[in-house]
Amino acid sequence: MSVIVDLDRERRERPTPSIEALSALTKEDIQNVNQTIIDRMESPVILIPQVAGHIIAAGGKRLRPMLTLASARMCGYEGDRHIGLAACVEFIHTATLLHDDVVDESDLRRGAASANAVWGNKSSVLVGDFLFSRAFELMVEDGNLDVLRILSQASSIIAEGEVLQLVTANDTETVEADYLEVIESKTAKLFGAASEIGAVVAGRPEQDWQALSSFGHNIGMAFQLVDDVLDYSARQATLGKAVGDDFRDGKITLPIVLAFRTADDDEKTFWRRTLEDLEQKKGDFRRAVALLEKSGALTATMELAREYGTKATAALEQFPDGEIKSSLNDAVEFAIHRSF
Amino acid sequence: MSVIVDLDRERRERPTPSIEALSALTKEDIQNVNQTIIDRMESPVILIPQVAGHIIAAGGKRLRPMLTLASARMCGYEGDRHIGLAACVEFIHTATLLHDDVVDESDLRRGAASANAVWGNKSSVLVGDFLFSRAFELMVEDGNLDVLRILSQASSIIAEGEVLQLVTANDTETVEADYLEVIESKTAKLFGAASEIGAVVAGRPEQDWQALSSFGHNIGMAFQLVDDVLDYSARQATLGKAVGDDFRDGKITLPIVLAFRTADDDEKTFWRRTLEDLEQKKGDFRRAVALLEKSGALTATMELAREYGTKATAALEQFPDGEIKSSLNDAVEFAIHRSF
Repeated sequence: MSVIVDLDRERRERPTPSIEALSALTKEDIQNVNQTIIDRMESPVILIPQVAGHIIAAGGKRLRPMLTLASARMCGYEGDRHIGLAACVEFIHTATLLHDDVVDESDLRRGAASANAVWGNKSSVLVGDFLFSRAFELMVEDGNLDVLRILSQASSIIAEGEVLQLVTANDTETVEADYLEVIESKTAKLFGAASEIGAVVAGRPEQDWQALSSFGHNIGMAFQLVDDVLDYSARQATLGKAVGDDFRDGKITLPIVLAFRTADDDEKTFWRRTLEDLEQKKGDFRRAVALLEKSGALTATMELAREYGTKATAALEQFPDGEIKSSLNDAVEFAIHRSF
Repeated sequence: MSVIVDLDRERRERPTPSIEALSALTKEDIQNVNQTIIDRMESPVILIPQVAGHIIAAGGKRLRPMLTLASARMCGYEGDRHIGLAACVEFIHTATLLHDDVVDESDLRRGAASANAVWGNKSSVLVGDFLFSRAFELMVEDGNLDVLRILSQASSIIAEGEVLQLVTANDTETVEADYLEVIESKTAKLFGAASEIGAVVAGRPEQDWQALSSFGHNIGMAFQLVDDVLDYSARQATLGKAVGDDFRDGKITLPIVLAFRTADDDEKTFWRRTLEDLEQKKGDFRRAVALLEKSGALTATMELAREYGTKATAALEQFPDGEIKSSLNDAVEFAIHRSF
């Protein structure tokens, strides 16, 4: 039984979308962002650059700072303030990853040992605090109060979303609206803010801020929903993240919410045992995938991801055509059709 | 055997200093600060005001926001922006308390159950993040970039100090300079920033900022050193905090650093067993107190606290005499001669 029939078929039917164009266009800027990150995570307390370096190296594609950089350039910005602001965004993201791993008790992040597994929870909590403070210092150095407002509000909402997720964790009765609120706060908010500040730094009118905020928000939602699907379908080797992590942690993601809603009594008992009581045995994950497929929950989640993707693309319409806009549209396609 | 001979004698010889004058002068402002805190810790995610309310209620004397309020008034400020900024300071302080309790694995804070003991470490980490973000939102609403710079730098340094403390924890070879660096970062920095922003909001020249920063820094150092002494000397009932907490946690405070330096081999073995290996048995705390007294470590720590107190008082000289300055000088005396 293949667990990824639909996704595989879709992939065969069209050229694989990628973020290569976006990466190429922001390559030089991202190198400067990386240098800023390295410079600004320095501390005489050497545990700080050790832990921060580990999580930043493990942090993946630098998608959020890329959005800041590309948004600023698409808005015609020609200065270099977007570098520092993109580094802020990555610092905020990294700080939340460090705290997330503590809260989730994760041993792995993208296939490598998580910082808390190597240095302990205490280091992760405190170095996260350091990176978060450092992000604000960098923003204050930039000195734009609109940027400060956007990113400080985003940070509050991220934290609020994390608490909401904690409250709804392992509750199979979570409704779709609650789940979407969690990922809007936890994920989409920072994507939106990262994109919006590109327009702010470029000195564009507020309607461009709003359009880019909407773009970032919607691509962020698409990314997260596809992540949720991939945890039940992609292969560990391509994902870099262990498949079944969400299941093992009892995370109530949208596929689960949807499948539980239409589950019969026997299936509900299965979900409660595995996700609420976390009593899992061999074969349970395979059964979970089968139930998700049977119920159409994975397909429905992908459908919703596509809707967000469409909104993201629509939000870019008001900007001039060109290679940057085109690369951002590719990123939307990538968010939806990626296999990792 | 009384463990507090010196302190008790000193107290009998002079009128008990207090922060009553400071409390009375800032009473109305503090009520407004408390209201701002209550308003701004609100969230539809009810766990947030629950946890935040618990820690804020347990947070004690509101000394840091009082310093902001009194500094602003002493500088002739007549507006109300100092209220929101004082609330920021308390939010930052509260966020660090929540994370501190997680890192220290504390079950008690000021005699009451700590937030992590009631709601778990995860809630404490995430609600701390929320309060910290909320502090920045409040600062951004105020919109003064100097205030933002001072408080964001203070936050970074606090986090750096927390990590340094983690690294030096349970190490009896910690030297005096390292210990003082930890408390300068962890405690004195926020006292300094809280006082300094009073002068900033009042629009005073930078030399007044520096003087109030120095005042806050030095009273903060005095407070912390006396705290360290009280953990080995005052009675639990008056402290509100369990005496012997630092000893039980293996915290290397200045009295320990000083006593270890002059300890003989037998005593060093005792300190290593109790504080590094945390192997403690009945009678150990009593012996620890006896060794600290014999070595003069408690007296020497009190002496250093007095030196910081003198510097704090000196920093106020350039300000006009009056009831506010007088109440701040009383607070310095209180920091040194308090029994809780």
